[in-house]
Amino acid sequence: MTGNDRPGTSPEVHLLRERLSSSLPEGRVVTDPDIAESYAHDQAVWAHYGTPVAVVRTRTTAEVQAVVKACLEFGAPIVARGAGTGLSGGANAVDGCVVLSLEAMDAIVRIDPLERLAVVQPGVVNDDLRAASADHGLWYPPDPASAPWSTIGGNIATNAGGLCCVKYGVTRDYVLEVEVVTGLGDIVRLGRRTAKGVAGYDLCGLMVGSEGTLGIVTEATVKLRPAQGRQRTVAGYFDSVGDAGEAVEAVAAAGLTPAALELVDRHCLRAVDEWKNMGLSAEADVVLLGRIDTPGTVGDEEADRMNQCFADAGATWSAVSTDEAEAEALFAARRLAFPALERLGPVLTEDVCVPKSRVAEMLRRIEAIGVEHDTVIANIAHAGDGNLHPLLIVDDGDTAAQARAQLAFTAIIDAAVELGGTVTGEHGVGLLKRDGLHRELSPEVLAMHRAVKAALDPHDLLNPGKAF
Amino acid sequence: MTGNDRPGTSPEVHLLRERLSSSLPEGRVVTDPDIAESYAHDQAVWAHYGTPVAVVRTRTTAEVQAVVKACLEFGAPIVARGAGTGLSGGANAVDGCVVLSLEAMDAIVRIDPLERLAVVQPGVVNDDLRAASADHGLWYPPDPASAPWSTIGGNIATNAGGLCCVKYGVTRDYVLEVEVVTGLGDIVRLGRRTAKGVAGYDLCGLMVGSEGTLGIVTEATVKLRPAQGRQRTVAGYFDSVGDAGEAVEAVAAAGLTPAALELVDRHCLRAVDEWKNMGLSAEADVVLLGRIDTPGTVGDEEADRMNQCFADAGATWSAVSTDEAEAEALFAARRLAFPALERLGPVLTEDVCVPKSRVAEMLRRIEAIGVEHDTVIANIAHAGDGNLHPLLIVDDGDTAAQARAQLAFTAIIDAAVELGGTVTGEHGVGLLKRDGLHRELSPEVLAMHRAVKAALDPHDLLNPGKAF
Repeated sequence: MTGNDRPGTSPEVHLLRERLSSSLPEGRVVTDPDIAESYAHDQAVWAHYGTPVAVVRTRTTAEVQAVVKACLEFGAPIVARGAGTGLSGGANAVDGCVVLSLEAMDAIVRIDPLERLAVVQPGVVNDDLRAASADHGLWYPPDPASAPWSTIGGNIATNAGGLCCVKYGVTRDYVLEVEVVTGLGDIVRLGRRTAKGVAGYDLCGLMVGSEGTLGIVTEATVKLRPAQGRQRTVAGYFDSVGDAGEAVEAVAAAGLTPAALELVDRHCLRAVDEWKNMGLSAEADVVLLGRIDTPGTVGDEEADRMNQCFADAGATWSAVSTDEAEAEALFAARRLAFPALERLGPVLTEDVCVPKSRVAEMLRRIEAIGVEHDTVIANIAHAGDGNLHPLLIVDDGDTAAQARAQLAFTAIIDAAVELGGTVTGEHGVGLLKRDGLHRELSPEVLAMHRAVKAALDPHDLLNPGKAF
Repeated sequence: MTGNDRPGTSPEVHLLRERLSSSLPEGRVVTDPDIAESYAHDQAVWAHYGTPVAVVRTRTTAEVQAVVKACLEFGAPIVARGAGTGLSGGANAVDGCVVLSLEAMDAIVRIDPLERLAVVQPGVVNDDLRAASADHGLWYPPDPASAPWSTIGGNIATNAGGLCCVKYGVTRDYVLEVEVVTGLGDIVRLGRRTAKGVAGYDLCGLMVGSEGTLGIVTEATVKLRPAQGRQRTVAGYFDSVGDAGEAVEAVAAAGLTPAALELVDRHCLRAVDEWKNMGLSAEADVVLLGRIDTPGTVGDEEADRMNQCFADAGATWSAVSTDEAEAEALFAARRLAFPALERLGPVLTEDVCVPKSRVAEMLRRIEAIGVEHDTVIANIAHAGDGNLHPLLIVDDGDTAAQARAQLAFTAIIDAAVELGGTVTGEHGVGLLKRDGLHRELSPEVLAMHRAVKAALDPHDLLNPGKAF
């Protein structure tokens, strides 16, 4: 929680800034402390961030390479960032670093309908790629809640997920090839543009989810799918998170593969109602929202079966929506949950993922942890793939409450690992999950991570201190 | 092409064999030269293989660890293998190595219908996993032509593909978690069993396709899908590979996603007819076989559209088959093509993959390369994903013809790279594509590969000299 102090003016810092300015076109290098501070952190609550020497807003791969070479020479760390919508502190500045903002590299280079791929710069906003793909009858599925703002580069850095991952997979499943500037200042292409390929190790997949610690992605080729078919929405109201969790298990046991299966709990419903007066919290304690996009009558039958799963698990009300506006309103409540909660105070966002069969148990444990640590924990969840986002809410400035929330945060991580889960489903390790990572991975596996990091970034230049 | 000589009997070799025998249960260690020779190579034609010191047939992860520790102590390389059905020499012995056969570790540990995953030992045969999954209404999609014999461990080592990859992806898309014995003798678990997870680098994905050079997989957790729906088969007969290639492009341009789209050329059809008298070669020069498994009437319409694509591209005959037996006979011809050709002489198998839009051009170039180098080149292809398997046929013992075939092999690789393709779509680099890899990857990317290898296998113990 360190703010950005007055910029250092040691001779070394001065020389690095001069070197950056002389290597790059006018206007790329920002040293104004107020502007620099706005680039020094992402949206992770309570994650430390340091003071950068400079922020550089590059526009070409060659400029990125020039920055890396300058930083290599001066031994200055580089923290690459997109839109800064991360929730784990992965893009937070470290003291003395250069923050490399890729948001201005926002060109959709090419969409190829025949090969079903798009070539994009890292600063392209997720929703913009989706819209451009739709113009060709194609679809880029990964849809993090941050899709209106977050960039493909940031999505790649964290291997971002989203609502439709339960059926369509995460960012890594869509990245075919990346152009990367390495920690040695080389420009390389990793992966391939063909449908298949096993020529060498999967270094492209290794870059995805590496949080800017192994290379800086300056271009990506991503797979596209044909446009998604008609969706039916199945909504269910439940009296408890446990019942809703049973419904999630029932859907999996029925052999259904929903295109989304989202959970919104009473804390979220109330917050949305207080803000937008949608009247949901009067009707339900927990809402489950499923979507089915299987074509034709087979999909209609699947939607009916999902509805039956909800009913069998104890839904107080459930229905297949045939009204697009009604369905859209329910999903709007899902999307509004996070900003509605943020209005109440800082929200510490969890991101555990457990096996589908443990969703009900995990939700019950989260409730108990909230009671034990006297912390309000709201829940939104990509329930269909077991990815839960407990949201810990604390009054601004209440340090005792903050300390209790930190304990609850840790207890949730422990519970997830105990249930066979992972400490981060789609947000990345960043700063907030570094301890959790040590609980999840063995010392031997952590040593393998360190060895790979040292192999590909031998000068520890790229986002040092993040992830592990 | 070196056979297995009399086993060396230097004191060092003697000590290593004793060490292995004393560390493992009775019967695990084989030093009989004739048996050892049968384990010293895969099915790659003309790939060199050396003489192992011993073959060890392990039955547990602890035994694999004991072998690695013994080899570490003696500095002896380890070449792990499954069923030996590889086509690139990836499992070929190097002189003085220990061949580690995992075929006896063939237990399906668990199939979990709710989480849709299977936990298997590496020696499980691909078709056996598919059959066991089917008992639960589930499906393991990756289906290399070697599926009746090849093992999941070998499939993971090469990131094996197959017929249905065009819609359902390759082995890496299905591997959630692996237990691995590392080159340091550690037993580690990489990946996760949850639907999503970004806790650290994707070391699990890195192991897939690493051809035994980064670790020895001793258990794998793989994703399963719900059982595949009803398939319609669309067959098309064409006068030229070029026309068939145009049909492949037309299918992609129509926005269709076939569950298989296979090509069989006249050389293969003739060889199958000579063997099984199916009468196909009298009717067509090239056959395309498509499959559509989209549910319901939507799938029926897609099959009709694919049929129309075939017709528009100049098919002399095409039809949607409603007769399962008829469709099965056509796919049997596809599966019999490779063994039918092998009856005629050694078959050097290519495995290039090009963009879908370049399939027609690539097929024309392969024809020209065959003429130029006076080599019979038959073609089977996973045409829908651009993965071509030109099969170079040479009379046994004709060294001049063999030399011409080698030139043709190289020319095909060059053409694939020139068209934006890769030198190996699904067979792996092994020995046969090492030169090709250097044509495909830049020196900087090769240096990254070497750095990763050195980081994870610092003693260069695991399958040294393979891949790069």
